[in-house]
Amino acid sequence: MPRRGPRSLLHSESRSADLLDGTLRGDRLSAARLITKIENNEAPLDTLRAIHKHSGRAHVIGITGAPGAGKSTLVDKLADHYRKLGKKVGVVCVDPSSPFTGGAILGDRIRMQTRSTDKDVFVRSMGTRGSLGGLARATNDTVKVLDAMGKDVVIVETVGVGQGEVDIVRTADTIVVVLVPGMGDDVQTIKAGIMEIGDVFCVNKADRDGANRTVMEVTQLLEMVMRPDDAWTPLIVQTIAAEDKGVDELITSVTKHFAHLQSSGELAVRRRKRSEAELLEILKSRLVHYVMSEDKMRGRFDTYVDEIARRERDPHEAAARILDEWR
Amino acid sequence: MPRRGPRSLLHSESRSADLLDGTLRGDRLSAARLITKIENNEAPLDTLRAIHKHSGRAHVIGITGAPGAGKSTLVDKLADHYRKLGKKVGVVCVDPSSPFTGGAILGDRIRMQTRSTDKDVFVRSMGTRGSLGGLARATNDTVKVLDAMGKDVVIVETVGVGQGEVDIVRTADTIVVVLVPGMGDDVQTIKAGIMEIGDVFCVNKADRDGANRTVMEVTQLLEMVMRPDDAWTPLIVQTIAAEDKGVDELITSVTKHFAHLQSSGELAVRRRKRSEAELLEILKSRLVHYVMSEDKMRGRFDTYVDEIARRERDPHEAAARILDEWR
Repeated sequence: MPRRGPRSLLHSESRSADLLDGTLRGDRLSAARLITKIENNEAPLDTLRAIHKHSGRAHVIGITGAPGAGKSTLVDKLADHYRKLGKKVGVVCVDPSSPFTGGAILGDRIRMQTRSTDKDVFVRSMGTRGSLGGLARATNDTVKVLDAMGKDVVIVETVGVGQGEVDIVRTADTIVVVLVPGMGDDVQTIKAGIMEIGDVFCVNKADRDGANRTVMEVTQLLEMVMRPDDAWTPLIVQTIAAEDKGVDELITSVTKHFAHLQSSGELAVRRRKRSEAELLEILKSRLVHYVMSEDKMRGRFDTYVDEIARRERDPHEAAARILDEWR
Repeated sequence: MPRRGPRSLLHSESRSADLLDGTLRGDRLSAARLITKIENNEAPLDTLRAIHKHSGRAHVIGITGAPGAGKSTLVDKLADHYRKLGKKVGVVCVDPSSPFTGGAILGDRIRMQTRSTDKDVFVRSMGTRGSLGGLARATNDTVKVLDAMGKDVVIVETVGVGQGEVDIVRTADTIVVVLVPGMGDDVQTIKAGIMEIGDVFCVNKADRDGANRTVMEVTQLLEMVMRPDDAWTPLIVQTIAAEDKGVDELITSVTKHFAHLQSSGELAVRRRKRSEAELLEILKSRLVHYVMSEDKMRGRFDTYVDEIARRERDPHEAAARILDEWR
């Protein structure tokens, strides 16, 4: 066999079978390229299918909280501490608030590059390109890639706390809600929405005035929630991420939660929910793809849209007709 | 015909044909009941179809911006001023950050009740009950109800600026982005994502330090965006909503934009996009409804989900099988 030059080697390495093999061997470059394909909706189906079957080992931790709560610093420290415990770590930063590539996620991209200098932590940033559904799907597949490449812990960090973030974080095994002392009324309002999804509450910047009050408020809110006797009782941890304080306690709490998930059988329940959401999302996108890509259907779809906009037809009737025709 | 008592009258009024007639006559109670049915996913298809055909007259204004920008006060004042101009006004407050009913949207509900004392302004609050897609659909149908009941202006106000909000506000004819002077870095980041969708930028709390700087920043950002020669150039308005200042100027700008939409033909383009998004959303929900409600399909779906969670099957193959079976 003739020896191949660097160019043909590069070409060969980006072939999907090689990307898959590389990823499963834990190769960063292969994983990074595969994720880019996922983001661009260009990942071959066979590869995604294989990745799925090789995933399911990692502990997936979702981290959410209001902007300014110090999530990114906390995630940096979490990754460091997990490394020190000998764990392989992957991080996915998701920003659903940005419907556009570029500008809004620039901050993350810069941060990502800084963190990427640590060879043992794989960090990836993602923004929406089009739809929330698309982002959730891409995030989900990216988590699987990190899982399949052998990461023990995959941290999914969201920028804000909108419904998009909640939907994404919900697919994690353990959900950490990051709060800060002395948040205003607006954030209190947001808090009410995420209190019910937190497995661990992390009061960050705990050296600030009002940290104890925030812990008390969270405790009171949690006490108001009715839970079955054998259910997990959310833990509250105080951290000062910027000073690297309390991070081990956070890891202990998160690990306790994972142990509870495993012993109670709840892990299977959560992962089943994740699979259900995933299957529904793929079903929907396949339907849309069909309607939008087949010439005959697309023409009819466009005609219906025109008629709906002119109020000559209503969208419910049009949807029924499209589905009837498809079947 | 025997005279009916109040009880049977009430019963009769909530029949869907009567709800529709009442709504088209501009009756508040009928419209409110119909919207409740829409929220609960109980609105009869025939009613929704009729409402669609009776809508399309109102100027739909989307208002978005970071929490704390003073959007709700601004919307109150906008409604007042429109009323003084003899316009009928409907307001829909949307909170996609709340995946749960109750808590998180309580603030809005209280506000709503205060505003509802003005008989001429119809205000309705909505939170997510389940999915963002569901909220977008319910909001869209609610806007149509207000339109069909004869409102000249329908204001859709969102609580935050996540992707969910952007998706909802995007369906408006005119998009107003509310900013405040002296926003921190986090909000600047968010701003980058919404700069491209604003038709009118409203710098509220303009008596604060840095108002002129914010106006300058917005101007500079807008200059960086490439636009065709005949495209709308976004307007920037300064308001102090709490002191009722600048609101007429805001209305003037919004009205100018609507006139531009009409004269340029852009209105038809935007409404076509809205119809397309609506049709796709209905298509997807019909598919999910089918898979989830038909016994045979549901059983198969559940089996597939189990297999996917156990990594015995991948979701892409399962989706293909489900769609094949359906056809």
